[in-house]
Amino acid sequence: MKIEVLQEELIKGIGVVGRVVSNRAQLAVLGNILIEAQKTGLRLSGTDLQIGMSIGLPAKVSETGRITVPAKVLQEFVGSLAPGRLTLELKQDTLIVEGGSYRGKFQTISAEEFPAIPVLPDNKAKIIVRQSEFAEMSTKVIFAAAKDSLRPVLTGILLELSKTSLRMVATDGFRLSVGKIKAQGADSLRSVLIPMQAIAEVARFEGEEELQIVSVEESNQVIFQAGESLLVSQVIDGNYPDYNKIIPKESKSEVVVNREELLQAVRVAHIFARENSNMMKWDVNEKEIVIIAESPERGDSEARVPAKIDGEGGKIIFNAKFLLDFLSVAKGSEITFGMGEPLDAGVFRSTGDEGLLYIVMPINA
Amino acid sequence: MKIEVLQEELIKGIGVVGRVVSNRAQLAVLGNILIEAQKTGLRLSGTDLQIGMSIGLPAKVSETGRITVPAKVLQEFVGSLAPGRLTLELKQDTLIVEGGSYRGKFQTISAEEFPAIPVLPDNKAKIIVRQSEFAEMSTKVIFAAAKDSLRPVLTGILLELSKTSLRMVATDGFRLSVGKIKAQGADSLRSVLIPMQAIAEVARFEGEEELQIVSVEESNQVIFQAGESLLVSQVIDGNYPDYNKIIPKESKSEVVVNREELLQAVRVAHIFARENSNMMKWDVNEKEIVIIAESPERGDSEARVPAKIDGEGGKIIFNAKFLLDFLSVAKGSEITFGMGEPLDAGVFRSTGDEGLLYIVMPINA
Repeated sequence: MKIEVLQEELIKGIGVVGRVVSNRAQLAVLGNILIEAQKTGLRLSGTDLQIGMSIGLPAKVSETGRITVPAKVLQEFVGSLAPGRLTLELKQDTLIVEGGSYRGKFQTISAEEFPAIPVLPDNKAKIIVRQSEFAEMSTKVIFAAAKDSLRPVLTGILLELSKTSLRMVATDGFRLSVGKIKAQGADSLRSVLIPMQAIAEVARFEGEEELQIVSVEESNQVIFQAGESLLVSQVIDGNYPDYNKIIPKESKSEVVVNREELLQAVRVAHIFARENSNMMKWDVNEKEIVIIAESPERGDSEARVPAKIDGEGGKIIFNAKFLLDFLSVAKGSEITFGMGEPLDAGVFRSTGDEGLLYIVMPINA
Repeated sequence: MKIEVLQEELIKGIGVVGRVVSNRAQLAVLGNILIEAQKTGLRLSGTDLQIGMSIGLPAKVSETGRITVPAKVLQEFVGSLAPGRLTLELKQDTLIVEGGSYRGKFQTISAEEFPAIPVLPDNKAKIIVRQSEFAEMSTKVIFAAAKDSLRPVLTGILLELSKTSLRMVATDGFRLSVGKIKAQGADSLRSVLIPMQAIAEVARFEGEEELQIVSVEESNQVIFQAGESLLVSQVIDGNYPDYNKIIPKESKSEVVVNREELLQAVRVAHIFARENSNMMKWDVNEKEIVIIAESPERGDSEARVPAKIDGEGGKIIFNAKFLLDFLSVAKGSEITFGMGEPLDAGVFRSTGDEGLLYIVMPINA
């Protein structure tokens, strides 16, 4: 194997696939990056067995070959070199990387030991979405997934792939975020549950116009590809909650409020609320939302946020953190809050965030 | 107590004194900030008993008074408010902070329980240095102090206060950094050993021209004051090593090398060296320093740095981390390395860093 590649391309590629590589993997080869020098260029891959990533880079390949190298140390070495041309050459079991007055020699593990990462199959129905829309919507959805694994299905993001839309759903049982973007392609609807990290990684694919999504039922995998970047994720098994049941059909009151002002008030409330189970009291009257948080040990805070209200308003208690999460990722200038009885779920929408819906269960205190 | 103060002034002041306040202090009042509304303005203080800090702020005081409030929650609350006028008012045992449509109420502890922070005494000899020079030199010295407390004296910074100079010394037993800046004032020389954190805090005092340093032997304290900022530090007891003995009197070879190039090469070496006790081999020949680092498990690296040499050069092994530390904080464009036998300490100077000397013991391997 002998390759010439630009340092700036190589470090970008290692950065992308390196994110799924673990230094503490049980299997040493999983701490490595697969380097494939192909006639068409250089391909780098990394995997933690659940998620596999791979990226193609422009390179001048004078001798093809495949080898794996420790990801972290290669990343640091290449990252320390100046931009410009590097040579990578495999001599016996050592990969030699040279650039300027620097030379690094890396111990390797045979490419045969590296788990295969599939390519996008030609014979499967593809869903095609805009990468930028996918990336933006995922930030507005995945924060609502569960972080722990008491109920592993809740740590996943549900993708509903259809001919005209891709719906992304996340819930931790206390709040629910649902996003919908336009899609084209496959005929049949399929729902797949994907680890949140996989969605986050796909969201980071660089600004390609098209993202292709293929569900491979035989291997229980979903493949995402945009340009030269590819991610394969295992599907999480299990029954996802019927989230449509959680969404209230109608609201007693509709409250419209400036997003920045509300975010600011919730941020202040959170300072005291987090010492009191995150409890934040809202009193919605005809001209404002009065937000109160109390800490038994520190003190309390009160903030008033002007609001336009259609309906009677009333009192409700929310988890301040749940509102912070949503208000921080929403982009619109105004938030619409659909309010019911004190124990009915709150329904949040954001102007300018079409296709996005956020549901929060109130606290019964 | 009733005060009007600008949010931007108050948050800056809380930020300064808050750095010595611990949330986990044994004594609850040590987690608080002392707020003193004086006729001349507002004064904030914080202390962890070893270091005390205090800062004066412009404020409109309509009712004087003293009270202490939990530092962290006050900092977060005030930090969340918009710039502009705030009112602070003490009602019974509650401090009420109001700004715009926000109101926070904070539980308090009486100022009587707060440890007294001394003021700069008038009757003591003062050393006066330029704050900017003190700040710059401290970054070039304190990194060499010991981080652990096996030998507590080595975690301190030795200050040698004299009429014409202030010398700062730090060593962890393996390397030594000595910095000297101009001073005026006191007649008699005094050496005091100060916790490294105190020096770092004084270095952060905002750009005042003059820093006054007073050693108060009766209370075993040193007081630093620049403008409205004051820091009091306990002196560390114990015998500091006679560091002059460590400094080699002469070098066999003098090596001059570009600082950025050397830093870069050491940074690369450190990638492999840190998996091998930080060992980095230097081979100094007539035109360059060849730097080699080897990791038993990952591979190795070699870098060549052009150098001008007066003398024979030779081989020496350094701890890569020790060189990184120094080369990262030195400012000059060129480094002079005084080299002796393989087991003699290396002597480093940096052009443009006058008064700075860095000594590193080599590794015997």
